[in-house]
Amino acid sequence: MVASEIRALFAVAARPEVVSLAGGMPYVSALPLDAVGQMVGDLVARNGAEVLQYASAQGDPGLREQICDVMSLEGIKASADDVVVTVGAQQALDLITRIFVDPDDVVLAEAPSYVGALGTFASYQADVVHVPMDQGGLIPTALRETLERLRIEGRRVKFLYTVPTFQNPAGVTLTPARRAQILEICAAYDVLIIEDNPYGLLGFDNEPMRALRADDPDRVIYLGSFSKTIASGLRVGWVLAPHAVRAKLVLAAESAVLCHSSLTQLAVREYLTTQPWREQIKDFRELYRERRDAMLDSLGSLMPEGCTWTRPAGGFFVWLSLPEGLDAKAMAPRAIAQRVAYVPGTGFYADGSGHRHMRLSYCYPEPHRIREGVRRLAGVIEQEIELRDTFGGAGGSGAQSAFVDTPGPETL
Amino acid sequence: MVASEIRALFAVAARPEVVSLAGGMPYVSALPLDAVGQMVGDLVARNGAEVLQYASAQGDPGLREQICDVMSLEGIKASADDVVVTVGAQQALDLITRIFVDPDDVVLAEAPSYVGALGTFASYQADVVHVPMDQGGLIPTALRETLERLRIEGRRVKFLYTVPTFQNPAGVTLTPARRAQILEICAAYDVLIIEDNPYGLLGFDNEPMRALRADDPDRVIYLGSFSKTIASGLRVGWVLAPHAVRAKLVLAAESAVLCHSSLTQLAVREYLTTQPWREQIKDFRELYRERRDAMLDSLGSLMPEGCTWTRPAGGFFVWLSLPEGLDAKAMAPRAIAQRVAYVPGTGFYADGSGHRHMRLSYCYPEPHRIREGVRRLAGVIEQEIELRDTFGGAGGSGAQSAFVDTPGPETL
Repeated sequence: MVASEIRALFAVAARPEVVSLAGGMPYVSALPLDAVGQMVGDLVARNGAEVLQYASAQGDPGLREQICDVMSLEGIKASADDVVVTVGAQQALDLITRIFVDPDDVVLAEAPSYVGALGTFASYQADVVHVPMDQGGLIPTALRETLERLRIEGRRVKFLYTVPTFQNPAGVTLTPARRAQILEICAAYDVLIIEDNPYGLLGFDNEPMRALRADDPDRVIYLGSFSKTIASGLRVGWVLAPHAVRAKLVLAAESAVLCHSSLTQLAVREYLTTQPWREQIKDFRELYRERRDAMLDSLGSLMPEGCTWTRPAGGFFVWLSLPEGLDAKAMAPRAIAQRVAYVPGTGFYADGSGHRHMRLSYCYPEPHRIREGVRRLAGVIEQEIELRDTFGGAGGSGAQSAFVDTPGPETL
Repeated sequence: MVASEIRALFAVAARPEVVSLAGGMPYVSALPLDAVGQMVGDLVARNGAEVLQYASAQGDPGLREQICDVMSLEGIKASADDVVVTVGAQQALDLITRIFVDPDDVVLAEAPSYVGALGTFASYQADVVHVPMDQGGLIPTALRETLERLRIEGRRVKFLYTVPTFQNPAGVTLTPARRAQILEICAAYDVLIIEDNPYGLLGFDNEPMRALRADDPDRVIYLGSFSKTIASGLRVGWVLAPHAVRAKLVLAAESAVLCHSSLTQLAVREYLTTQPWREQIKDFRELYRERRDAMLDSLGSLMPEGCTWTRPAGGFFVWLSLPEGLDAKAMAPRAIAQRVAYVPGTGFYADGSGHRHMRLSYCYPEPHRIREGVRRLAGVIEQEIELRDTFGGAGGSGAQSAFVDTPGPETL
């Protein structure tokens, strides 16, 4: 339901006069559209009997080989036989949850966590328990305490769901030292890890981080996606899983959609074979870095005192925390009226908290629009602060109570 | 699991020396591949910002309008707002089952029924109860008796799943008179109907049949697909549902895959706008009619006594019943050794029956290959009959017992 609320917000935010800092849409117009069009057209004309036909449920073998090459950039050694191509990484999440989760099982997730994952976990009646983060990502001691508490309570923990790199929505990245600790803790408590990594190749500063999967092939199920590195409209993602899980995933995929589209799978295969995809990712990185800079600069010069935000080193998102007494969800319609949109933090928590936070995306609007959006947003927040100071609260009554239980605001 | 067995069979059947009468793959090579390639290429080059971007979870609005036009050929009056575009009709089946079925709920299905549907029902732990068919499709009196029995037993029936037109696997079509009766019976017992209609426009003789949905918009959820009328590799299907169900389907689709591929959706939209799709469907019909004729002629002249089969008026499939004492599943490896493949009937029953039957597809091989395949198959069956007459059985011990409970063999 929460994911759908966000979509409703996007519908309003799509009006041209609104600067949308809400959507996580990649800027696909940066692709060489003529070349990609030519490539796809030739593919259909030349190889239509395959491109327009059913595929195997596991996905095209050639594409799965290429996926292994892409993952090797993050230190992953894998066999194409353990890869399943999915309808975006979202389908991978759905199939994994379907396989592992029974109602009331515990799923651990960062606070805040990806809204689409929370929606899927909810649809299978998982009990999501959040684990706090800070600028260095998931906090290992907090993870250990949470696992210990759940063990004492006799709860069944099915897996830890994490976006370790350039996290959605918080924009933070798990440090290398903590990666080792998280793996160690999950091994000690025998907890599976779902590593969701759509943004891993979109870092602004360094070489790609080493994936969690690279250091524990048996405990980590890795989700990848071409949505941000090629094009989201293809819906080509994948899951790399230990062999026994992979077999179950193929059966579940077959039951869910029979097979993926050959056209989109083979378009990706052809793109990776014939187009300069590494250079294109570099172009994307530079484009998003420029936009990240535009956002951080504007936030720094325009945001009223009491606001704090994260400083992403890659990916699409900044996580902004409002001064005490403000409510990002209650404020959203007033922001829209001022022609700026964001996603209120509440969508990223399964427990109703997150009211004081918002996700700001810099991936889609051009830099001058980002600056204009932040300017408008700063104006809205200033008005809210005035309202709070005058009336002792900015609407959204009862919303504040959730903060007490929220690990996010203090630690991010 | 059963669907996966069939895929394993397909893998062997794909060897070039084997005539495969197993797969239900449309003959997409009959499309004007150059024109379709040109069209898709132009679409990406001209409109890449939309084609390569995320779409709405419900599906492209323009495509949904066109889907209503397509459905109007079968007498359906619908609003685009009640259509959800899905990853093939298979995803529609999955989402519907997810929404409606709790473990041990009863789902009614024809005997035999589409293997992909049975797999999905099994994955949600539905209890599939088969209802017999004959040459006129589902038998109304049998449906009424089954519903009455289940009512007495206090069972909860969630829906009737039916492929009324050119059924997969049986190739039979529900008569117009029975359509009215089935609707009446389901109304009397307040049972929802899932009408799965991928082959409806591929009739060889007459205008398209009137869909069940055309006469009961509130009770019938209609599933459609472009897999057989355009191309299966696009994975574009849809579901038309009463408004309240539609809202749930959109949420379920969002949770399952976030959204469908824009590329494949807009390729279908463009195809329906710019290409002579009605004429193409007419070409497909003529092509499949010729192949159906090749199969029926060969069966008539070559099959040994005791074999019976259906005479489809459209679609892709003939359902063949073997003489008593033969087992199509046990025979399958011997048929492969003789370089002909089919799908044993057992896959199309949830209750382990169907051993004496097989599905023969005429959609993919060219007519001379169909004739050769039937010739080889007839030889294999003759050998089996000899074996049976010599040893009193053709392997597959215990398999015969299921026949007693099978409504299929006698009535088809």
